[in-house]
Amino acid sequence: MSLPHLAAISCAIMRQMESHLAVQDTYPADFAHCYGCGRYNESGHRIKTFQTEDGTITTFDPPGIYTGAGNFAYGGILASLIDCHSAGSAAIFWMQANGRSVGEGLAPRFVTGRLEVDFVAPTPLEPLVLAGHLAELGQRKVVVTTELSCSGQVTVRGRAVLVKVSDS
Amino acid sequence: MSLPHLAAISCAIMRQMESHLAVQDTYPADFAHCYGCGRYNESGHRIKTFQTEDGTITTFDPPGIYTGAGNFAYGGILASLIDCHSAGSAAIFWMQANGRSVGEGLAPRFVTGRLEVDFVAPTPLEPLVLAGHLAELGQRKVVVTTELSCSGQVTVRGRAVLVKVSDS
Repeated sequence: MSLPHLAAISCAIMRQMESHLAVQDTYPADFAHCYGCGRYNESGHRIKTFQTEDGTITTFDPPGIYTGAGNFAYGGILASLIDCHSAGSAAIFWMQANGRSVGEGLAPRFVTGRLEVDFVAPTPLEPLVLAGHLAELGQRKVVVTTELSCSGQVTVRGRAVLVKVSDS
Repeated sequence: MSLPHLAAISCAIMRQMESHLAVQDTYPADFAHCYGCGRYNESGHRIKTFQTEDGTITTFDPPGIYTGAGNFAYGGILASLIDCHSAGSAAIFWMQANGRSVGEGLAPRFVTGRLEVDFVAPTPLEPLVLAGHLAELGQRKVVVTTELSCSGQVTVRGRAVLVKVSDS
């Protein structure tokens, strides 16, 4: 991907962000070592999920080790990105519904009950954007849908059922 | 997990194996760099899937970096294990159905079309066993179900739809 293309994507994402604080930055410490999104896991992806005008967004630039077949990204890593992005999105959507913004206290903790991933096209090993939307919200259960795209083309669709940890 | 327990699991697995050649050892070179199962990816999981009497088996001992919340394994990594285990299983089941054993020529290549994962209980960061079964088999499409267990308890169930790469 060219530098101007990357810059354009970054600008578009920045414009969409409602807050500049990622929900993962407000996870309780005992929830912040996750390989996918824990800010304390130095070996992990450390993804960050932000609230946007109509949903959530996470970006990730996969290193070359995460190859699958050929020059494409490994599907298992894409599934794991959708998993953590969905958990962060669930926390954001739940807080929104309960009148709280990201940063107003620690985020509630959500764990994944079910994950569904449809690989609709091969995903290049290039900067990726995950856009999340709220599909269903209850007091303890949140359903999040995700479109993972590369250079504007959706290559993977996800749906995750998240459950709120009872003491969070 | 204690050493005797580990040894007992290893013996049980060895007894189940129909062949001692993993299907991933027979993947074509251009399919062998996958982060999940590629024998040439030095940073990856390098999982190995074997044919058993009634299905397939993969074992994996997750390193500590793959933590999720608390002392449990990260769900995204478990999903990625099911992904690669399913692709290897699909190749084994397809070869069986076409009168071939693992090692009789290069394995056919399968890619994941859809992945479903149900997290039914937290998974400890301890040695894991993935047992695969054939749910559906066509000329190009194979459906594999997987039970991921730790110390004999099933903690994750998977279902994957795999599609055979046309020139393999």
